[in-house]
Amino acid sequence: MKYLEAINAALEGYIAACDVPKVMREAMAYSVFAGGKRLRPRMCLSAAELAGGSMEDAMPIACALEMIHTYSLIHDDLPCMDDDDFRRGRPSNHKVYGEANALLAGDGLLSLAFETILREGQERLRTAPRYYEAALEVARGAGVSGMVAGQWADLANEENPAADADALAYIHRRKTGALITAAMVSGAVAGNADAKLIDALRCYGEHYGILFQITDDILDVVGDAKTVGKTLGKDAAQNKLTYPALYGLEEARRMAEKEAELAIAALLPFGEKAAWFTELAQAALTRTY
Amino acid sequence: MKYLEAINAALEGYIAACDVPKVMREAMAYSVFAGGKRLRPRMCLSAAELAGGSMEDAMPIACALEMIHTYSLIHDDLPCMDDDDFRRGRPSNHKVYGEANALLAGDGLLSLAFETILREGQERLRTAPRYYEAALEVARGAGVSGMVAGQWADLANEENPAADADALAYIHRRKTGALITAAMVSGAVAGNADAKLIDALRCYGEHYGILFQITDDILDVVGDAKTVGKTLGKDAAQNKLTYPALYGLEEARRMAEKEAELAIAALLPFGEKAAWFTELAQAALTRTY
Repeated sequence: MKYLEAINAALEGYIAACDVPKVMREAMAYSVFAGGKRLRPRMCLSAAELAGGSMEDAMPIACALEMIHTYSLIHDDLPCMDDDDFRRGRPSNHKVYGEANALLAGDGLLSLAFETILREGQERLRTAPRYYEAALEVARGAGVSGMVAGQWADLANEENPAADADALAYIHRRKTGALITAAMVSGAVAGNADAKLIDALRCYGEHYGILFQITDDILDVVGDAKTVGKTLGKDAAQNKLTYPALYGLEEARRMAEKEAELAIAALLPFGEKAAWFTELAQAALTRTY
Repeated sequence: MKYLEAINAALEGYIAACDVPKVMREAMAYSVFAGGKRLRPRMCLSAAELAGGSMEDAMPIACALEMIHTYSLIHDDLPCMDDDDFRRGRPSNHKVYGEANALLAGDGLLSLAFETILREGQERLRTAPRYYEAALEVARGAGVSGMVAGQWADLANEENPAADADALAYIHRRKTGALITAAMVSGAVAGNADAKLIDALRCYGEHYGILFQITDDILDVVGDAKTVGKTLGKDAAQNKLTYPALYGLEEARRMAEKEAELAIAALLPFGEKAAWFTELAQAALTRTY
């Protein structure tokens, strides 16, 4: 997969460089190297490349996105949150290292994301003059107006379910969509894209984020033979607000198709250079059948 | 108190500007405005001023330090960590908002710290050209090689107590010392201090950090009439590794005096301009009698 080896090597380097107790490094690495597909960093680097920037300049930001994504999964799995014993077919972080250490591993990864961004920034300013502006996009997507607000709203909705389209859209635009959109925009800005390209990549990110969530919701209902150990139907069993639950399976699939179309259309003006993004949206769609 | 009003006003502004669900803003504000003395931001702003910089340039960094300190208290109080029902005489965050929301309020404050730093950075570069270098000091102090590592080591030591001076020094140099030192150095760098002044302020920070921890440990033993609601002797009861437990009360007091002396001595070359820091170290010492 595009960039995968380079991303994994960079993540290994950033985590190896930490001056931490051995078991803490292991706990962070356990979840960072748990078979994730590196979707967000790959989107970030691809957006930077499409803008004419270099992979090297965007790499700290790309890896920060993955660290932030990973911390959110560790905290999300904790007993006081979703209480999930498994993640990607392996025991979740707190089942292996205990709750307190999992909490700290998450805190550590979130901190390391910004430490990495800041440490690697100065030397990149010559070729990526808008590096810190790109980093701000990551912070916004990850933060209290983005992913954290989405998590919060998701929890609130479980306590007081409001089965309506507005609540669903609010939660997912933030919980998964904000960081995915941030991956696109941060890559574009790090690659010094012009306003037109930034807007197009942001538009792709927003539609891909919804597409991603709808297909994820559908897979929870219909199962996914490719995802070993996925706890089938857990969200449905918990009466969570999902796209299939609110709209029905067929309508949810139709909505996913529409989002894929809109995402792909946003990058049409950039032709072959955007081929990777077109394939990514099509691949997300085919997971649901 | 020096800078207190300006810091509180800035913190209010940063939190008010978040686009978050109302109860989430309340949960963050509950702990940020819980009567903290703003020690770290005041140290940061004072260091910037001593270096000839402006309060305005260092303010986002100062407030980020307070947000990070607050998130660490919220997470530290959680049932899976220290399981404290009270903080500064009021119910701790999770007792009011529930565990999941407290976890997210902590995640939110840590994210907001770096979002604030990055959002406020660009416009400050003209007068504070080393602003991002200052921000990196905060990230290092807060992160996996600093405060988080200290928390981790503290937990590990509770499980497998090693009542020795090395373990105690390792834990406290990181758990409380790293962020206090980061406050000093980040302020100095934001204020564009030269290497000699940065070293002196770092030296003060390191000694003050130990002084702070020793006096905190002593207060847990002898009590502190001024701190309403403090759970007396909790650490001692839990058989935690503390300075009085390891060295005895009198020797701990002597050590605190020595650290105060060293902190004050570090800033002697800067005369009257460093008076605030001298008083701060003396005030920490007098808390213990």
